[in-house]
Amino acid sequence: MITHINPVGSMNLLSQIEVDHLKQSARGNLYQLFRNCALAVLNSGSQTDNSKEILDRYTSFDINVIRRERGVKLELFNPPVHAFVDGEIIRGIQDHLFSVLRDIIYVNSKLQHEDEHNLTSPQHLTDLVFSILRNANAVHPGLEPNLAVCWGGHSISAIEYQYTREVGNELGLREMNICTGCGPGAMEGPMKGAAVGHAKQRVSGSRYIGLTEPSIIAAEPPNPIVNELVILPDIEKRLEAFVRMGHGIIVFPGGVGTAEEILYILGIMMHPENRNQPMPIILTGPKESADYFRSMDEFIGSTLGPDAQALYQIIIDDPAEVARRVKNAMPLVRDYRKTVGDAYSFNWSLHIPPEFQLPFVPDHANMASLNLNRDQPPQQLAANLRRAFSGIVAGNVKEGGIKAIEEHGPFLLNGEPEMMLMMDKLLQQFVEQQRMKLPGSTYVPCYRINR
Amino acid sequence: MITHINPVGSMNLLSQIEVDHLKQSARGNLYQLFRNCALAVLNSGSQTDNSKEILDRYTSFDINVIRRERGVKLELFNPPVHAFVDGEIIRGIQDHLFSVLRDIIYVNSKLQHEDEHNLTSPQHLTDLVFSILRNANAVHPGLEPNLAVCWGGHSISAIEYQYTREVGNELGLREMNICTGCGPGAMEGPMKGAAVGHAKQRVSGSRYIGLTEPSIIAAEPPNPIVNELVILPDIEKRLEAFVRMGHGIIVFPGGVGTAEEILYILGIMMHPENRNQPMPIILTGPKESADYFRSMDEFIGSTLGPDAQALYQIIIDDPAEVARRVKNAMPLVRDYRKTVGDAYSFNWSLHIPPEFQLPFVPDHANMASLNLNRDQPPQQLAANLRRAFSGIVAGNVKEGGIKAIEEHGPFLLNGEPEMMLMMDKLLQQFVEQQRMKLPGSTYVPCYRINR
Amino acid sequence: MITHINPVGSMNLLSQIEVDHLKQSARGNLYQLFRNCALAVLNSGSQTDNSKEILDRYTSFDINVIRRERGVKLELFNPPVHAFVDGEIIRGIQDHLFSVLRDIIYVNSKLQHEDEHNLTSPQHLTDLVFSILRNANAVHPGLEPNLAVCWGGHSISAIEYQYTREVGNELGLREMNICTGCGPGAMEGPMKGAAVGHAKQRVSGSRYIGLTEPSIIAAEPPNPIVNELVILPDIEKRLEAFVRMGHGIIVFPGGVGTAEEILYILGIMMHPENRNQPMPIILTGPKESADYFRSMDEFIGSTLGPDAQALYQIIIDDPAEVARRVKNAMPLVRDYRKTVGDAYSFNWSLHIPPEFQLPFVPDHANMASLNLNRDQPPQQLAANLRRAFSGIVAGNVKEGGIKAIEEHGPFLLNGEPEMMLMMDKLLQQFVEQQRMKLPGSTYVPCYRINR
Amino acid sequence: MITHINPVGSMNLLSQIEVDHLKQSARGNLYQLFRNCALAVLNSGSQTDNSKEILDRYTSFDINVIRRERGVKLELFNPPVHAFVDGEIIRGIQDHLFSVLRDIIYVNSKLQHEDEHNLTSPQHLTDLVFSILRNANAVHPGLEPNLAVCWGGHSISAIEYQYTREVGNELGLREMNICTGCGPGAMEGPMKGAAVGHAKQRVSGSRYIGLTEPSIIAAEPPNPIVNELVILPDIEKRLEAFVRMGHGIIVFPGGVGTAEEILYILGIMMHPENRNQPMPIILTGPKESADYFRSMDEFIGSTLGPDAQALYQIIIDDPAEVARRVKNAMPLVRDYRKTVGDAYSFNWSLHIPPEFQLPFVPDHANMASLNLNRDQPPQQLAANLRRAFSGIVAGNVKEGGIKAIEEHGPFLLNGEPEMMLMMDKLLQQFVEQQRMKLPGSTYVPCYRINR
Repeated sequence: MITHINPVGSMNLLSQIEVDHLKQSARGNLYQLFRNCALAVLNSGSQTDNSKEILDRYTSFDINVIRRERGVKLELFNPPVHAFVDGEIIRGIQDHLFSVLRDIIYVNSKLQHEDEHNLTSPQHLTDLVFSILRNANAVHPGLEPNLAVCWGGHSISAIEYQYTREVGNELGLREMNICTGCGPGAMEGPMKGAAVGHAKQRVSGSRYIGLTEPSIIAAEPPNPIVNELVILPDIEKRLEAFVRMGHGIIVFPGGVGTAEEILYILGIMMHPENRNQPMPIILTGPKESADYFRSMDEFIGSTLGPDAQALYQIIIDDPAEVARRVKNAMPLVRDYRKTVGDAYSFNWSLHIPPEFQLPFVPDHANMASLNLNRDQPPQQLAANLRRAFSGIVAGNVKEGGIKAIEEHGPFLLNGEPEMMLMMDKLLQQFVEQQRMKLPGSTYVPCYRINR
Repeated sequence: MITHINPVGSMNLLSQIEVDHLKQSARGNLYQLFRNCALAVLNSGSQTDNSKEILDRYTSFDINVIRRERGVKLELFNPPVHAFVDGEIIRGIQDHLFSVLRDIIYVNSKLQHEDEHNLTSPQHLTDLVFSILRNANAVHPGLEPNLAVCWGGHSISAIEYQYTREVGNELGLREMNICTGCGPGAMEGPMKGAAVGHAKQRVSGSRYIGLTEPSIIAAEPPNPIVNELVILPDIEKRLEAFVRMGHGIIVFPGGVGTAEEILYILGIMMHPENRNQPMPIILTGPKESADYFRSMDEFIGSTLGPDAQALYQIIIDDPAEVARRVKNAMPLVRDYRKTVGDAYSFNWSLHIPPEFQLPFVPDHANMASLNLNRDQPPQQLAANLRRAFSGIVAGNVKEGGIKAIEEHGPFLLNGEPEMMLMMDKLLQQFVEQQRMKLPGSTYVPCYRINR
Repeated sequence: MITHINPVGSMNLLSQIEVDHLKQSARGNLYQLFRNCALAVLNSGSQTDNSKEILDRYTSFDINVIRRERGVKLELFNPPVHAFVDGEIIRGIQDHLFSVLRDIIYVNSKLQHEDEHNLTSPQHLTDLVFSILRNANAVHPGLEPNLAVCWGGHSISAIEYQYTREVGNELGLREMNICTGCGPGAMEGPMKGAAVGHAKQRVSGSRYIGLTEPSIIAAEPPNPIVNELVILPDIEKRLEAFVRMGHGIIVFPGGVGTAEEILYILGIMMHPENRNQPMPIILTGPKESADYFRSMDEFIGSTLGPDAQALYQIIIDDPAEVARRVKNAMPLVRDYRKTVGDAYSFNWSLHIPPEFQLPFVPDHANMASLNLNRDQPPQQLAANLRRAFSGIVAGNVKEGGIKAIEEHGPFLLNGEPEMMLMMDKLLQQFVEQQRMKLPGSTYVPCYRINR
Repeated sequence: MITHINPVGSMNLLSQIEVDHLKQSARGNLYQLFRNCALAVLNSGSQTDNSKEILDRYTSFDINVIRRERGVKLELFNPPVHAFVDGEIIRGIQDHLFSVLRDIIYVNSKLQHEDEHNLTSPQHLTDLVFSILRNANAVHPGLEPNLAVCWGGHSISAIEYQYTREVGNELGLREMNICTGCGPGAMEGPMKGAAVGHAKQRVSGSRYIGLTEPSIIAAEPPNPIVNELVILPDIEKRLEAFVRMGHGIIVFPGGVGTAEEILYILGIMMHPENRNQPMPIILTGPKESADYFRSMDEFIGSTLGPDAQALYQIIIDDPAEVARRVKNAMPLVRDYRKTVGDAYSFNWSLHIPPEFQLPFVPDHANMASLNLNRDQPPQQLAANLRRAFSGIVAGNVKEGGIKAIEEHGPFLLNGEPEMMLMMDKLLQQFVEQQRMKLPGSTYVPCYRINR
């Protein structure tokens, strides 16, 4: 079965030179990445976080960029049938497919043909994040602050999932938009809930923004509610996109990825230059998850200290209160941005120190040499802990990480014994609560803590 | 707690004389009906089909129409708190509240002040139905035929409910809009499913039309997805509204109300003048409900005969096929309307014989004297069977009916023994399958079959 | 040549009974009126204020209301060809045609079939004006006050015409909408100017409202810029529509019609109940017209006195200042309406005394018996002077008036000699300045002043 | 007087690096050009084609690009007051101001920071034209072919001007959009006429596209109706933009610029690869201008031959027929684009030979060495004649050309005597008919024909 798909959005207006570059890139060394991400998107709605399983099921799938006088087309060979209705591709999946083309191939091909971005300069990295978001039409100058970023695990319990929907509903009733990492679990629940809340309030133009990365999109494919999908090149740019776009952050229970996210935002917000930035950060879950947040809070308290703890609130089992707190902070965000002359749609004035912005490559050497002692400034420690958790995420679900573990065994983490103990305890809990992987598989840790 | 609510829609543009009439009507003998319907709407989302329970819980609730220089306002005393978010009424509930005011008070007050409608003339009755729908802004001249009417029970099994959502999803993926009776069960599932399907297809301007009547709105309150709520004066006008607005009909499993609906549409479609009307009628359910449709089909076969059976298709366990059949009929509907010069938004050319249009008052005398023998033309028999089922619905859930049963005991139905046997068997199945009332209560039949 | 025209706006959603009534009315005693108004509208753009001339040119024109299953159609026989482009009717003219059907036939047929309006009661008359405007979709609840009513003659000099365009441009630059009597001259210039101003400011949704009456539409056909055309039954209802819809009034030079309008608004605004109503009234023209306003001001001063003079400002040769004054008054209008709870779109709280609201029939007896002495309260005098001028307008250009004059000679006006002298002088100026009729014809006065 | 102006359109979403580049460019060697174009735009509506006069009147005017956290602002010192209404800049002028910034500064700064465009490659030149138009949001993929390009002189007679309005009106009545060179005369009339036609047809979303170049914008400032202003770097790219965007071409009387345009389109359309391109070309004017087109037609006939003459039609004094011909060609354009897979919004498949695409620098040497003999292929000759006329335009109104003439005397043109004679005659007519410069100045020829 061969199908041709028309472009949408900014991919609908390419020049012929751009199409030529695109064709070349799509056949070049980005091809495999592009094909796999496209397959992930076409496979949206499937119930697995195992990328390999998806890839194995559709070995005959192929994708091709075709040049037309008027622009570009995508040619699909043997795509998953459930992406189509009576022979027509589902419009939301078509959107996602061209988001993949746009962000993986086009952004890359563009980067090669200009000299604008120096990828070690903080200013240029931020500029790149902005350019990718703008090119994805995800920066809307006219909107008031109302974007709630929701973080949390892809593998959560049914009770926790229901709770994320209820928080989403309460956010939707208060006309907040939602931005998540766009997989299942805590990344899907708030969007579904908000969709119902928006319908009750007759809100139109709702935004359900999914920010993802190539290495994770297959494991966490965008749910069809996502109506703005952006694929950032790596986790550091994805995290930067979250915190510069969002006007408030809600953290649901999750595993190492969620821990990484918490450490990222706390490390940034502890920086003196961000002292006056209003940014509500709320950790929340149903009463059944109260222990989870107690452990997390303890871990933060004993690693980063009370200054970090003061940056967030923990709210247990009160969806309306969570939404109300975030909503009530919006006028503060608005006023602050107005005062410093910053945009509502992209927080240029948030300072992100280089240790949070520069990509961390999670190989065995880098992981082993992370400084995990408390004899360093807390935001430095936050940055290193963030890296440690990031590496474990890679070892768990990212292709490169899994391969490295298979070859060299688990990552070794070194550090101050007391802290290593706490870290081990936290990770052990994630394993026990099945937060590392979707239930059904037995989790084999990809790390070993040296203590 | 006292709250003032601003008008929306057509109630936002009343003249002062209209407001005066409204104030009077709202304090007059319609007051109780208006108050109770308003309460039902404010209580949307509660999980009971027992109107009395709702009314008993909110005895201190009161509602008032206030005159303002610029028009009308509603004043609420002690309304249910879950209709509000942070002190503001939920916009969808505000819409529904003014739909109640518009259709119960305003339509009545208007009828009193004009001589246009003779309520025994078929033409005038149709005109009234049209006028109510138009006044509710539910007739949109510009739209292509795409409205699927979904009928079925409010009390259905979880499997059946899930099935109605899947059919809704498939309809939504094909950009069909949904019209139902606006309560729970088979009236809610298709809308929820379609909302997801529409989101996947990026459809905007979706219509989720709920048609109800004053005597049933409390037992079957509109779910918040309903974005066009119309309250017709009685079941006959409500049924007429369904079949003149809809472009295809899908029947899910249900109880006596559903049986009434099936007999109504079959009786009409059997009329020679409607021979050429394209109107897809599909009876569908999950495989677990196959028996239900077998019984129904048998009952129709042996009462109305094979001509009636030829008017519908039974599709078991194939949501996509159901949606595809309805979708594929839309060009036929369009062409037919074009040929006869009829509107897409209101089927003026459908002939509805008076026996289906004139209100039937289900008291003991009328019920007992229904002609339930097969020695009459089949559409006559369909009309009488429709009335019989209609009376049982009233006895089950409508205030007047329940009171009559309490005073005089069950309705007595007379007729040809063989047919009475079949009817008894069908009704017995409804009871056993808990289709008469929501589970949790024991069903005491409101009828007795004389055989 | 026979053409069928599809309905637009509210005429696109009629019930079959309404269409039947319409058909009957359109063939009944309203037929001639309807036909002539339709012809006037189809003839839009022609350069004559002589209705007879138009009617004589198109004797073979005929119009027919046709019933279709889906509603109504208009059938035109031998319509003026310049209403069509390549065989298709110009959309603006189609709009106007259905405005005529709606307001002449439909409103009449509706009035016959309801008992709601008692046409001698002030409240009911206001209600009728509102109902006609609402049925014409000319009352928009959501808009901020921004409607400038522009009055002035249809026969003005080229310099004056250019001035009205400049004022219109300045109003448009300030995002004001325009409402006029919808003929040529001072009724067209401000709209054309505002259209350019709106284009410069990229305003969308501009409103160019034309309010007219059946007896004048042929002499003053709506220019094609008018995008909301409403035909009120008589001059009194038309004047009421102007002052209840408008948020400010600008008066350009004109003849007796303009004098009537000035006396109408002054008489109303002098009423104690309207003391707090903010209503900017500005008399303006180019410096060449300064004398005109000096005479008008003198006439008002010596008839109604300084209280009346205090209600308006005269601004000579300063279009920007005129627009600025009106614009600056809008917040006052807004605040006042908010305070008294009145609508922005229809000024319910403006008190219009019965002597300004009840229709005046300008026959010889009524004209002769008008009390034109200063021994009465000034607003009473204003009402009577208004009637005198209104009668002269009828004698000049309205069919009934012209016929009466032909039969019985000029109207005789009686009154206090000094005042009669002033009136004669004013009228004489109108004649000399060619404000009575379009240049080219010799004006024969239709009145005689008894002094 | 200092005013700060907020960005609009694509300038509202710049990254901070882009703003930095912009600031630098705006202060660098582009500053003078930018300042003068901005002044031209702010001065819109003035009645002179003498750039110098405008510049001399506003010597104290200055403009500055300011960096804000959220993007860019413009700071104006002593701008012309008539660009403002009550202290607020007119929105259309604000649009034009940011079009200038976007196309002069931003496009330049962008070109410096990428390696994508090789400005001697035909493909890259076309790509650049497309990129500039896309960046200006002037390429709309969704629209049907309906863009009429109108060419003709800025200095035309009142009768000719009125005729261009009437053609515009007829185009507007047929829902065609308009694209011109955006100055006065034949570039303004069609837009004004179309605006009225669009209003009559209730068309929304009308496009009035003005394509200009930095060296001519001061002499031919955009009229305020232009709602899409694009400034192309030079005449060759501007001409390419015209013919790739437009779906039909109408040529009104004009001077040397118009002659240049005619030779450009004929030269291109004569190319064998464009044989099947449907492209209506209509030369039209009032009957008073019939001679003009006779001369032009003769000149073309005897230089390029009958093949060139076959490409256009001359229609005298029939605005409706002109519009009808263009309108009727639209389905052909649509079908052709569909067949070859080309876009409706940009004619990629039109072949433009390099001699029409590469910039011609009109200095004395280049002008003198132009091959103006008939011993070359006709489209080669068309290209050289185009260059000759282009040079004369520069000598007449462009800053660089005027300076060159002041220093070195008139351009010398050499060629075959007979052709030189014809050329001289044609130019002489332009002078006599005051088509070279706006009336009021005496025209001193900037060329000398060697024969």
